[in-house]
Amino acid sequence: MNHSDTLELSLQLLRQPSVTPVDHDCQNIMAERLAKIGFNIENLRFEDVDNLWARRGTEGPVFCFAGHTDVVPTGQLDAWNSDPFLPTIRDGKLYGRGTADMKTALAAMVVASERFVAKHPNHKGSIAFLITSDEEGPSINGTVKVVETLEARQEKMTWCLVGEPSSTHQLGDIVKNGRRGSLNAVLTVHGKQGHVAYPHLAENPIHSASKALNELCETVWDNGNEYFPATSFQISNIQAGTGATNVIPGTLKVTFNFRYSTEVTAEILQQRVLDILDKHQLNYSIHWTFSGLPFLTPVGELVNAAKVAIKNVTGVETKLSTSGGTSDGRFIAPTGAQVLELGVLNATIHQINEHVNVADLEPLAEIYEQILEQLLAK
Amino acid sequence: MNHSDTLELSLQLLRQPSVTPVDHDCQNIMAERLAKIGFNIENLRFEDVDNLWARRGTEGPVFCFAGHTDVVPTGQLDAWNSDPFLPTIRDGKLYGRGTADMKTALAAMVVASERFVAKHPNHKGSIAFLITSDEEGPSINGTVKVVETLEARQEKMTWCLVGEPSSTHQLGDIVKNGRRGSLNAVLTVHGKQGHVAYPHLAENPIHSASKALNELCETVWDNGNEYFPATSFQISNIQAGTGATNVIPGTLKVTFNFRYSTEVTAEILQQRVLDILDKHQLNYSIHWTFSGLPFLTPVGELVNAAKVAIKNVTGVETKLSTSGGTSDGRFIAPTGAQVLELGVLNATIHQINEHVNVADLEPLAEIYEQILEQLLAK
Repeated sequence: MNHSDTLELSLQLLRQPSVTPVDHDCQNIMAERLAKIGFNIENLRFEDVDNLWARRGTEGPVFCFAGHTDVVPTGQLDAWNSDPFLPTIRDGKLYGRGTADMKTALAAMVVASERFVAKHPNHKGSIAFLITSDEEGPSINGTVKVVETLEARQEKMTWCLVGEPSSTHQLGDIVKNGRRGSLNAVLTVHGKQGHVAYPHLAENPIHSASKALNELCETVWDNGNEYFPATSFQISNIQAGTGATNVIPGTLKVTFNFRYSTEVTAEILQQRVLDILDKHQLNYSIHWTFSGLPFLTPVGELVNAAKVAIKNVTGVETKLSTSGGTSDGRFIAPTGAQVLELGVLNATIHQINEHVNVADLEPLAEIYEQILEQLLAK
Repeated sequence: MNHSDTLELSLQLLRQPSVTPVDHDCQNIMAERLAKIGFNIENLRFEDVDNLWARRGTEGPVFCFAGHTDVVPTGQLDAWNSDPFLPTIRDGKLYGRGTADMKTALAAMVVASERFVAKHPNHKGSIAFLITSDEEGPSINGTVKVVETLEARQEKMTWCLVGEPSSTHQLGDIVKNGRRGSLNAVLTVHGKQGHVAYPHLAENPIHSASKALNELCETVWDNGNEYFPATSFQISNIQAGTGATNVIPGTLKVTFNFRYSTEVTAEILQQRVLDILDKHQLNYSIHWTFSGLPFLTPVGELVNAAKVAIKNVTGVETKLSTSGGTSDGRFIAPTGAQVLELGVLNATIHQINEHVNVADLEPLAEIYEQILEQLLAK
């Protein structure tokens, strides 16, 4: 088969079993290609995480491709139709762990840069790559540390295109111009253990909490806005009881998560939760964990360049979205960069038999190249 | 120290480590004493459970003492101030596993019978003992099997005094003339697992169920009656979630128990629960376990004899109650016998450092004897 440049590089990257936080040579493969076309390469290793910062040019504006070489674990190996680290094409689909999330996008970024540099060796500003091997894991020694390093030396990105798989039904139908904030809490409701036959001597925390939990489930936190869907509240875990059927439990533990829009803040959500718990006179303790502020890139140069490129290459009118999980964009946006996520279809990410359409790879490289054209061509 | 007869026999029984279903010679110790005063002894062993049926006389009416020789496990041994199977007197209290539940009552029954028979060798009717070594356990091969055996040969009890510790603040202040029914259920609410960031693609069973659970917690099932407190509903266990904070769970499991009065039936309660679940359109499965029908012995010969005896011996006006856990009375009452529970204080049953007041032992034997006097003296 005659492989396209993007497919060829994708296959090279996909053969590396780079499960978080192991990079397994992926960044070197990319860096070698980028060095050849004039990128300055910096390997920034923090603890067990490899990071790559590559830049072509010293001036602004800075267009940065961002992404990650690490992939999630394969899951049950024998449930795969082919070895997840021996990428395989069947019926026009490329199967393998990381095909969608997000090694094909990494390949498309490199190929797009090569083609753009070939045409515009003296482009405006700079092209950069911010690549980590810890996006799927704790995300402590990855993008966030690279951003800190860049900020410390006042090296700024103007635009950042994250190659996360943003598309839903066809390539480019959705780009993400922001992400909701994420706020976790572990709530412990304290009661008094006892025998079910003597409820007046006990205090059942499941019963005490039932009204408050129902109110939390039914509360409308906001209605979202132009860019964000409404804030959502989900209880992910609830636990009380020892297993014995005749014992009233002493405590109830509830874990919940907010995905929130820019219409509220974490502080507002926390206060509203506490108000509900207090209104129902619960005896409780609560432990909050912030796992990401919301961010938003309003329509501007980067969004417009992406829209135009997608329309040119695929004919699709792209839609802006801020839905879905968190991404490393949350670490980059606070520097003031415009951040956009644009990549292949996300239907099979993190699943058994993860795959992409082979026919989407060259168009993605072309979209990336056209974005560079619009923003950095002289 | 000069031990009373009841204390002496109590100590003998308490030294046997008869944790359910092991009788450890307790029934033999009792049977030997009873045989000496003319009881006919039957050892009825079913599987791993020892049962004793002893009867003095062949005529009716039959007054039966019922009880159990087995005790619950000791719990953490080093939390006891003295060996739970080396009964110890400190400050007027007798410490040991089974002191309250219910070996001192067994001793009092034997001593009361000895004294009564000595005074009334030709008493009316019969005195019987129905003693098991599996009341605290599964209760499958204990009292229920003995009752079946007796029923099969049409051997009936007229009155049955169960020696369970019924007293609350002072000896005889409470007797139990019935028990609530007990009905258990395991409810599984089915949802659809998913990612917390995509709640519209999932269905959170905790959220779906929250209104129904709140309604179940707040429902008034009945107001009880002259003999029974209001029916009580308690959730003993609730569980959903994998531990992961970003996963909406696929199922919610809830275990609950009813302790119910004679104002409702198990069938009515089941239907009302199903109605609430259906009203809230839950997708659920439910598994019911009946663990005891309610029973009631209205005021009559046995209750009156107990009231008079308690008043004579202690000066206390006893109160009737049907509260508390289940007892073997539930197996005996359906035969048509009048069933009453009367024993020592229950404050420390099943606990570390279980104990009784030594000063309550002889009065209990005297109360039992006076009840025999009223019902069987010629």
